[in-house]
Amino acid sequence: MSSAVQMNDAQTDGQLPNSRRVYIDGQRSGLRVPFREIEQTPTRNFDGGLIENPPVRVYDTSGPWGDPTADCEVSKGLAAVRRDWILGRGDVEEYEGRVTQPIDDGYLTFDAVNRARVKDVGKLEEFPALKRSPLRAKSGANVTQLHYARRGIITPEMEFIAIRENLGRTEHRSLSADTPRDSLHHQHRGQSFGAAIPSYVTPEFVREEVARGRAIIPANINHPESEPMIIGRNFLVKINANIGNSAVASSIDEEVDKMRWSIRCGSDTVMDLSTGKNIHATREWIIRNSPVPIGTVPIYQALEKVGGKAEELTWEIFRDTLIEQAEQGVDYFTIHAGVRLPYIPLTAKRTTGIVSRGGSILAKWCLAHHEESFLYTRFREICEIMAAYDVSFSLGDGLRPGSIADANDEAQFAELETLGELTKIAWEYDCQVMIEGPGHVPMHLIKENMDKQLETCHEAPFYTLGPLTTDIAPGYDHITSAIGAAMIGWFGTAMLCYVTPKEHLGLPNKKDVKDGVIAYKLAAHAADLAKGHPGAQYRDNALSKARFEFRWEDQFNLSLDPEVAREYHDETLPQEGAKLAHFCSMCGPHFCSMKITQDVREYAAQKQIDEQAALEIGMKEKAEEFVAAGSEVYVESKA
Amino acid sequence: MSSAVQMNDAQTDGQLPNSRRVYIDGQRSGLRVPFREIEQTPTRNFDGGLIENPPVRVYDTSGPWGDPTADCEVSKGLAAVRRDWILGRGDVEEYEGRVTQPIDDGYLTFDAVNRARVKDVGKLEEFPALKRSPLRAKSGANVTQLHYARRGIITPEMEFIAIRENLGRTEHRSLSADTPRDSLHHQHRGQSFGAAIPSYVTPEFVREEVARGRAIIPANINHPESEPMIIGRNFLVKINANIGNSAVASSIDEEVDKMRWSIRCGSDTVMDLSTGKNIHATREWIIRNSPVPIGTVPIYQALEKVGGKAEELTWEIFRDTLIEQAEQGVDYFTIHAGVRLPYIPLTAKRTTGIVSRGGSILAKWCLAHHEESFLYTRFREICEIMAAYDVSFSLGDGLRPGSIADANDEAQFAELETLGELTKIAWEYDCQVMIEGPGHVPMHLIKENMDKQLETCHEAPFYTLGPLTTDIAPGYDHITSAIGAAMIGWFGTAMLCYVTPKEHLGLPNKKDVKDGVIAYKLAAHAADLAKGHPGAQYRDNALSKARFEFRWEDQFNLSLDPEVAREYHDETLPQEGAKLAHFCSMCGPHFCSMKITQDVREYAAQKQIDEQAALEIGMKEKAEEFVAAGSEVYVESKA
Repeated sequence: MSSAVQMNDAQTDGQLPNSRRVYIDGQRSGLRVPFREIEQTPTRNFDGGLIENPPVRVYDTSGPWGDPTADCEVSKGLAAVRRDWILGRGDVEEYEGRVTQPIDDGYLTFDAVNRARVKDVGKLEEFPALKRSPLRAKSGANVTQLHYARRGIITPEMEFIAIRENLGRTEHRSLSADTPRDSLHHQHRGQSFGAAIPSYVTPEFVREEVARGRAIIPANINHPESEPMIIGRNFLVKINANIGNSAVASSIDEEVDKMRWSIRCGSDTVMDLSTGKNIHATREWIIRNSPVPIGTVPIYQALEKVGGKAEELTWEIFRDTLIEQAEQGVDYFTIHAGVRLPYIPLTAKRTTGIVSRGGSILAKWCLAHHEESFLYTRFREICEIMAAYDVSFSLGDGLRPGSIADANDEAQFAELETLGELTKIAWEYDCQVMIEGPGHVPMHLIKENMDKQLETCHEAPFYTLGPLTTDIAPGYDHITSAIGAAMIGWFGTAMLCYVTPKEHLGLPNKKDVKDGVIAYKLAAHAADLAKGHPGAQYRDNALSKARFEFRWEDQFNLSLDPEVAREYHDETLPQEGAKLAHFCSMCGPHFCSMKITQDVREYAAQKQIDEQAALEIGMKEKAEEFVAAGSEVYVESKA
Repeated sequence: MSSAVQMNDAQTDGQLPNSRRVYIDGQRSGLRVPFREIEQTPTRNFDGGLIENPPVRVYDTSGPWGDPTADCEVSKGLAAVRRDWILGRGDVEEYEGRVTQPIDDGYLTFDAVNRARVKDVGKLEEFPALKRSPLRAKSGANVTQLHYARRGIITPEMEFIAIRENLGRTEHRSLSADTPRDSLHHQHRGQSFGAAIPSYVTPEFVREEVARGRAIIPANINHPESEPMIIGRNFLVKINANIGNSAVASSIDEEVDKMRWSIRCGSDTVMDLSTGKNIHATREWIIRNSPVPIGTVPIYQALEKVGGKAEELTWEIFRDTLIEQAEQGVDYFTIHAGVRLPYIPLTAKRTTGIVSRGGSILAKWCLAHHEESFLYTRFREICEIMAAYDVSFSLGDGLRPGSIADANDEAQFAELETLGELTKIAWEYDCQVMIEGPGHVPMHLIKENMDKQLETCHEAPFYTLGPLTTDIAPGYDHITSAIGAAMIGWFGTAMLCYVTPKEHLGLPNKKDVKDGVIAYKLAAHAADLAKGHPGAQYRDNALSKARFEFRWEDQFNLSLDPEVAREYHDETLPQEGAKLAHFCSMCGPHFCSMKITQDVREYAAQKQIDEQAALEIGMKEKAEEFVAAGSEVYVESKA
């Protein structure tokens, strides 16, 4: 099993340039919310004076890994920041938990485990840190955030989220709609298609949205290492990165590294889609080291337990797997309970049939047994398990279209109807629910997906894979899908599941993971801008200002990927001096349009007159002065 | 001057895999339209029998370079395929033409030219092939395609275009709207926002669209090497790639190679934006070897002729440059005649002022002289020149927004009004016109751009740069802009100017050019799908069918970039056998959802029953048979 991954620990561990970790304290003792602050250099004024530029604060998903003062080691796992909050609610109990079995890692016996260890040292290393006993709801209790929200309780998680989501809004809310365009706080009025985006996020607003089922907080009580985040149409658009080994490639180390790499790049949640050996162990390492919610598709592991034979799956094996993973701390489960027997024939004439792995496993089971799947028939029992640990539902779209041809067809929308019914059942148990969406959809059919989902699923958050807007660009599907993702995010999708350049072709390596995460971060941000999230435009404004003022370092550092921005610049003009130059490498010293505009402004400033006045009155005379003064385009930087 | 470009001639020259050049003959003698046909392997049926898959025919921009039987050499230039058509109209005259001067290449004297030659051998090599005398319209004649179209004349160029645009429509038009989804000819009904897309493109339709000014055929009579193509809202969405040297990097060889590389990847036109030395010579090499229309921004060269001092530009120098370039065969000129003096103050309070190079040069000139620019005051004289050679106008958006903050502002839309007025004037001279558009625009403000352009500019084709939908991702602006490009293409933009990953950072190398072209090809195709161009979905359907049937080679070959698709696959499973395997590298042999769906179908086929019937009647019994037969998921490929 050779690795397709180029490991680079220095990159995974390195802090982002010119950045420092800051925390904002909540009202509760010990509640502190992390942000990253990007320092800027000053603007050099026309007279040579310096004007400070404030640091830019950005949402930070990297957790303790992004805090150089935190003492993090993969073998120890992260601190359990939520543990006291969870225990403090008095509704959970520690218990002995399920005993781990060799089959959990895909081995039939302990003997097989040991043979695997000898062959491949370290591959199956158990997580070495002190094992906590798992928690679950006390008998009769319900520990979901939805349960608390409905009872009017504002949890620490909700307060944390309110602070986190308010990024940039403190300044923004004091401003009028007519903030001038040259202000860092200028923002276009958005078009939110009926979303109810607040000018300021209060803990009570978070609670209300969760209580209405319009947002979820994936926060398993056995994943106390996670920093609370929210997925909902009235909050910032989130993204998910999929990682996970398969039968053909990669190791535990690589997957932990990919998780850390994903969150460094900005992923809001991570799904572990492992399907090979060592599934249990891999997941344990990932969860113990993850500050973001972890999602899984439990049917994948259940299938491994029956040797890959879908028809041999049983409710008992599946149930056991749910509990196994809930005890480990998985925050959301994809459950393909909408793949109903009568819908399967609807896929037979499709161009690409059933492309969801979970969907096809269940379809096969249904066909073999000619019965509705146990996910559907046992749905209420699943709800009871989810409620006992606060695992959120991600109701899977097992019948999503796998090609442009199959978009928005009968099978897809039939399943969506069922997901809507199941949402209502899950809500009876105070379970948190989001709904998974497609897939491959041409641009003009995207909005129909969003509109139907909102209506059918009672505004439960939508969580879509792309969608890809054409099938003809394998190798570039992070782009074909970023187009669809940005659009559906604008229309109301709460979380976008990334697609990497390797989609349809192979397993993503670290570069692919980054390419996928950045493509989706920019798509989510484009959606936030279009929806009009207050303050969302601040970072665009700051970066554009830096660009216009030839503050190259600031332009790099404010970007989603400072390392690549710098590298691309240096390919053309590698000298350090070039980053201080008042021209850019595209056009050379004589030709920079931004420089020319600066000259126009500078001229006005030198003359101590307002530019506009200069142009509107007495321009002829001023123009002559301008020429007489010798308006050189290129002025060597003095910085 | 070191090169940032990794040259790879084998790649530039290599044919795309499994492809052959085919030609469709027109009714006129000698008129033949090139296409690329991608051969496919057969589908292996459940019983082991083979079913042929037809070759897939695609639009081909590579010209003679893509025809292995054509004898192409860069030093000879391409055959003058349009020469006889042009001469046959009897309205042109050969004349002596302007004498090339050292300043045309940025050198003040012939002595300087010779010194440059000694220092840097080959850099300034004149194009060696036989020089033709330039053509121009006879006195009193007008040689534009618009002129002919308005007089009811269907030119060979129009017939060529009709055949070219009809790609895939011959089969498509005989089909009903209810073509089943598993048919290669299935296509979703599009949403075209008022475009009048025909089910079949006739030469007469082409003529009508050109006559109405809704489409242009950039085809300078001095560029007879070009293969006719059309830019208009009712035709396939086109893309442009920018190349060109600058004062800081690259050589003639590199730029010619980038042009050839761009068209191999699928660029429909190429703009030569050179601004350094050897501008004239570089352009000559590019045009003589280009089968696609070449665009330029003449003010760039004019500025070089006055040593980079914008205020020293004169109408005489600019006029001389227009004629110089028109004689060489440039097919369209960006003319920033909409940058009017009263609009310049409107940019003073912007976040990023004036970011168009041409716009800022003109703004500087206007300020220095306190006069309207000669592009505006001499616009009718410019029209006369354009009409004499059939150079199309690309009316430049010199005041386009360079940041999200500046999108859709007063300056931008004021200029657009002027471009609309100028369009009407150009049409008086039978000049062909398209309109350039932004820039940086958040998603929700994109449609306003399109709607205003259609209204203000009387449906003249729109040609936009992106737009970029956020400012925060330098290094990834091919993606931030592909999102905006796909959307505005859907809304009605006729041609999309690419953005490379190096945008804002440096000069694109060959990889960047390809990344930009592919991102824009997929965006343009996503727009074609959404608009509902008949037949556009055929390639998606064929590729998805290949994917579903595990025809890996066909999936690679049908994609926009076969080399990258194959390379990504091989990173995970490099063995040749893996490309014949009935599973994909993402999931391994046990887990492929497509394989499971195939099993479902195979089961039905083996039992000689229709799948749907199998599921609807007697399913219980069949299910038992299915299990009894041992439904193995993984069947080794026999291919």
